[in-house]
Amino acid sequence: METDSKVQTLIWDGRSLMLIDQRKLPFIKEYVICDTYEKVAVAIKDMVVRGAPAIGVSAAYGAAIAGMQYEGVSKKDFTRFFEKAVSFLAASRPTAVNLSWALKKMKEVFIKYEHLGIEAIKKKLIDEAKLMESEDISINKKIGENGTHAFKNFKGKVKILTHCNAGALATAGYGTALGVIRSLALIDKIKHVVVDETRPYLQGARLTAWELYQEKIPFFIITDNMAAYMMSKGEVDGVVVGADRIASNGDSANKIGTLGLSILASYYRIPFFIAAPISTIDMNIESGTEIPIEERDGREVREVMGKKIISDEMPVRNPSFDVSPAENITAIITEKKVILPPFKENIRKLF
Amino acid sequence: METDSKVQTLIWDGRSLMLIDQRKLPFIKEYVICDTYEKVAVAIKDMVVRGAPAIGVSAAYGAAIAGMQYEGVSKKDFTRFFEKAVSFLAASRPTAVNLSWALKKMKEVFIKYEHLGIEAIKKKLIDEAKLMESEDISINKKIGENGTHAFKNFKGKVKILTHCNAGALATAGYGTALGVIRSLALIDKIKHVVVDETRPYLQGARLTAWELYQEKIPFFIITDNMAAYMMSKGEVDGVVVGADRIASNGDSANKIGTLGLSILASYYRIPFFIAAPISTIDMNIESGTEIPIEERDGREVREVMGKKIISDEMPVRNPSFDVSPAENITAIITEKKVILPPFKENIRKLF
Repeated sequence: METDSKVQTLIWDGRSLMLIDQRKLPFIKEYVICDTYEKVAVAIKDMVVRGAPAIGVSAAYGAAIAGMQYEGVSKKDFTRFFEKAVSFLAASRPTAVNLSWALKKMKEVFIKYEHLGIEAIKKKLIDEAKLMESEDISINKKIGENGTHAFKNFKGKVKILTHCNAGALATAGYGTALGVIRSLALIDKIKHVVVDETRPYLQGARLTAWELYQEKIPFFIITDNMAAYMMSKGEVDGVVVGADRIASNGDSANKIGTLGLSILASYYRIPFFIAAPISTIDMNIESGTEIPIEERDGREVREVMGKKIISDEMPVRNPSFDVSPAENITAIITEKKVILPPFKENIRKLF
Repeated sequence: METDSKVQTLIWDGRSLMLIDQRKLPFIKEYVICDTYEKVAVAIKDMVVRGAPAIGVSAAYGAAIAGMQYEGVSKKDFTRFFEKAVSFLAASRPTAVNLSWALKKMKEVFIKYEHLGIEAIKKKLIDEAKLMESEDISINKKIGENGTHAFKNFKGKVKILTHCNAGALATAGYGTALGVIRSLALIDKIKHVVVDETRPYLQGARLTAWELYQEKIPFFIITDNMAAYMMSKGEVDGVVVGADRIASNGDSANKIGTLGLSILASYYRIPFFIAAPISTIDMNIESGTEIPIEERDGREVREVMGKKIISDEMPVRNPSFDVSPAENITAIITEKKVILPPFKENIRKLF
């Protein structure tokens, strides 16, 4: 699938799914070739691929590959084989919402075309996975385009700060927050991107920087605690980040550190944008206080790319996300439109 | 020198200066034995010892050791030898203000007692270095004590967040910000200390955590970008940090990341304290904008304890300090008193 971006997170070659190994980036650029659904599941489990949309599309291809793996002629056997494969894939990262959503869609396709022959069903599964991939990229491009409108009042080039990786690597391609940056770069409107390294897992320093480097978009990396300094020195005109979940009042959960950035941006009166697909908005949740924050294994804090920096007897904490309150958010850039405050009303209108 | 703290940054045994090797902490506890002034200079240069007051006192002992190294009988030769040694020591970290200040004091002592015999002068030099060490510790203990007054209105135990290392390791002993924490712990008023890891050099994760661990003061380490989350969850009652330089209006320069903390604390209405000796206040400077910010070698950002995380072709920035505006500072805790706003007037009264 052509993504117009130089970063190919996943490549479907008609038989296998090739996933860029995000654990090794940026030092080693290596693809993991998954020609069985089991290999796709292991790749998801071992974090070869990360980012909710990227995981979803990978799982869909995993289900399509499962179809291709069946060599028998009994449709009953085929169904059983497919269902087993889907369960196996679903167990690879049980908490990832996009994963179960994508697999549910694949099961629906299977059921919808169950009256067809085995080979025809196999083809429908592949078509659906490809459709999910291209739809994700289309959504991101639309987010990118809408993002340029959010910056249309800026005279000249803009200096953007971003956190974590909401890029091509986290999606089927193009990215959400990085999609906005890519679209701004296409119209030559980027002065530079300030990239937070994003401890503990360094998605900024390792992945976002690598994407920008491939795209030849100017940038520099800072440690997370340098963001306030950069804002105070006029190095940031706007903050653009992704989101994992958005409450119906606009409160947005994203990678740990985003909350702090939203407060700093507000202090310096710098616009703070969330870039995310509509599907990120959870209308069942009234405010951010209802979003549970996962505390992950302390080992991520104790280590930096495998190097131990804190010994085991020292206590650490590792909340993985935080919630930026709607009051600090200038706008939410979606594929449908740029949502402005008051978010509660304007989000409801959209649904 | 008895410091009442379990961390001995420097030990004078009557002949040699033993410096704990801060590059290897917390994984290896090793002292570098300096029995010549050249060895002291190398230890300062190679960052075995860091922190302005600790460097100053080490240099003073270096000058005293130089005196002891002279084995001749000519006072003229002795003077020449001593002056050469002092210049050598001064060149070890040319930008460190405390280093030249301490060496200037040692030279004054030499001149003051030049009329005495060589052995008597040697003794005076040692006495002066010991005095500087004990005075630094006394000042820090006074800061600690005054710090407890700053928290006297808190009912029950307090949760303190600190950044970098303004501890025993950065001083002759006891510490400034960590001195306040030690004094609060002595009266059983610490619930826990939230320790910022403090990228790029990890002084928090490596040094502050290690000091607290020795002292059995409860703490946990976070990555710098988790501070806002901890504040939002009620895990922080007050922030206490050190300072490298304080302008006459109260603006305070400290390790990169402190500015962001001051803004976050202000947002959450959490008291934000600077703990520093009076000598840190620079009456020649009207505001923080006059404090030059050193940008250090990008290698510190590219590496974590020797592990390369960012390749050389990726641009990085590495400002080492930032300036917290006086408006975000609740009080400046010094050895003389706790200075409250308006800082400009109240600092002037003190001088």
